[in-house]
Amino acid sequence: MDLKDIGEFGFIKRFANKFDSFIKEEELGIGDDCAVMPINETDNFVVTTDLLNEDIHFIKDKISPEELGHKSLAVNLSDIAAMGAEPKFSFLSIGIPSHVSVEYLDAFMTGFYALSEKYKVPLMGGDTTKSADKLTINVAVIGQCKKTEMHLRSMAKEGDLICVTGFLGDSAAGLNVILNDLELSPENKYLVQKHHVPEPRINEGMWLAKQKSVHAMMDISDGISSDLMHILDASAKSAHVHTEKLPISNSLRNAAIKNNWDPVELASAGGEDYELLFTVDAKNFDSLQKEYKTHFSEEIFIIGEIKQGQAEISWFNNGKNIIINKNGFNHFAKS
Amino acid sequence: MDLKDIGEFGFIKRFANKFDSFIKEEELGIGDDCAVMPINETDNFVVTTDLLNEDIHFIKDKISPEELGHKSLAVNLSDIAAMGAEPKFSFLSIGIPSHVSVEYLDAFMTGFYALSEKYKVPLMGGDTTKSADKLTINVAVIGQCKKTEMHLRSMAKEGDLICVTGFLGDSAAGLNVILNDLELSPENKYLVQKHHVPEPRINEGMWLAKQKSVHAMMDISDGISSDLMHILDASAKSAHVHTEKLPISNSLRNAAIKNNWDPVELASAGGEDYELLFTVDAKNFDSLQKEYKTHFSEEIFIIGEIKQGQAEISWFNNGKNIIINKNGFNHFAKS
Repeated sequence: MDLKDIGEFGFIKRFANKFDSFIKEEELGIGDDCAVMPINETDNFVVTTDLLNEDIHFIKDKISPEELGHKSLAVNLSDIAAMGAEPKFSFLSIGIPSHVSVEYLDAFMTGFYALSEKYKVPLMGGDTTKSADKLTINVAVIGQCKKTEMHLRSMAKEGDLICVTGFLGDSAAGLNVILNDLELSPENKYLVQKHHVPEPRINEGMWLAKQKSVHAMMDISDGISSDLMHILDASAKSAHVHTEKLPISNSLRNAAIKNNWDPVELASAGGEDYELLFTVDAKNFDSLQKEYKTHFSEEIFIIGEIKQGQAEISWFNNGKNIIINKNGFNHFAKS
Repeated sequence: MDLKDIGEFGFIKRFANKFDSFIKEEELGIGDDCAVMPINETDNFVVTTDLLNEDIHFIKDKISPEELGHKSLAVNLSDIAAMGAEPKFSFLSIGIPSHVSVEYLDAFMTGFYALSEKYKVPLMGGDTTKSADKLTINVAVIGQCKKTEMHLRSMAKEGDLICVTGFLGDSAAGLNVILNDLELSPENKYLVQKHHVPEPRINEGMWLAKQKSVHAMMDISDGISSDLMHILDASAKSAHVHTEKLPISNSLRNAAIKNNWDPVELASAGGEDYELLFTVDAKNFDSLQKEYKTHFSEEIFIIGEIKQGQAEISWFNNGKNIIINKNGFNHFAKS
């Protein structure tokens, strides 16, 4: 059988529940942004890990080593942010082909270090080894959070507003710019930057986790059409999403017109935005928005509502039910 | 600059101390078998991670997927054993090229699961993704141990006996059998098995960690000529090692004669034995050996002594000072 017939999640389902009997009370295994393990009376450690493979997740000649170092850590910090946790420790495994120079690796570590320093996350260990031909990077990050501040994918409630912390689709558009070798206008440069140097929403995640009105939370790595489905599956709820409410940057709107891209498709199924996707008790939204703006000088965007019913997304455009590509990003999708 | 000019440890030295200022009291970063982080008043978590790359760490056609699944976890459990810790949680990142089938992956997970089950270590998360052409596997394991039972590489004392838990060189000989396509006689089969299905010394590590007479401890992954140097560097001590005391299996002795291999070179610099290397207060050795035999029906082997002086190994054969290849295993060694 070919992996693309069952996909990444189909493969994981084949073995994930085998380990259930070794998982103790208060521990959480496969299925959320991070695994969860209690460490004392009040706190949990949360753990995430991400593998970045050359020519799959990045094209070595298109991203600078500093940017790659940043991104390798950033995508993991985003999972920590999704748990509302404080990042505490990182681990880096790197498989290095013979054509990669020490200068390249030094520059990679410069980017990795700069983001580590921002959140005071020490690199505690890892593995440095040879690889046959492609650069291979695996990062794991451990975070810490209060047991009383856990926001799992399963916590969405009927009537909740579905919210995101920022623009969607920029990163996917940036990937389009890279893959099509488009001219690096200031607009396109911004989009590529969003793809190569994502900023994990650590402080926002930690703040949102403390708010009682916030229920389910996760980060957007595959696009909301795929990621929101994880919340709906875990919470056994359905959702309405309003495409006209998706926050889309002016840069993406302009680039979409110039290049004949569908900005809604990029914003809903594009992936790698690393914004937070969360649900909020509707009656508390206004006060949440007000306090969020005070703290972060930015706003929260409402994109839909959680409904009763089996896990699926109904898409609307100005009140009219529409159908959009719901697949999100799947590494093993049939082509 | 080429990585092979400075090697794995030379590269790590270029950035490791940059992170020191973020590392808090009681935490331990790069430099031992595991990183160490306190989780409550009495206990530490310890964390290790290992990357296995196709055609560098394994040849896909030479090792069965079940064996590869076992080994991917085993090499990490061995680092946990070296800290005297109990393994608690594992994480698996796997980069899968398109030619690898679901059946292959199922078999890989069967091997991974069997070893997980033995020590009741749940797979808590990871990352499943595509890779361009080679199979890439990264495993991370978290263990737990008492703060009062830590055995770091830095804890060797003058006069300590240097000990190992089992035969050395079998794994390296097994690799020779594989690389030279030697006939799979029962003897050679045993050696290949030791290379492909190493058994981490988890129970032995946890038991040794509780003994006050045990000081420094680590696992043997690169060969004692390299690994013992880590203890000597960290403890600022020198060592005498007696080659006639190195525990060498009859299978290796016989295969060495047939194939004109040097068994002492394989046992001292071969690597991937995954036995424990530790130092013991000399006056307590006899009672330690007696109790160890009672518990494990095996014996501890003394191979040398810790001496005062700068970090170096003096090698002896029946009392006569000799010179042997001291490089151990270095992925980036100049050829």
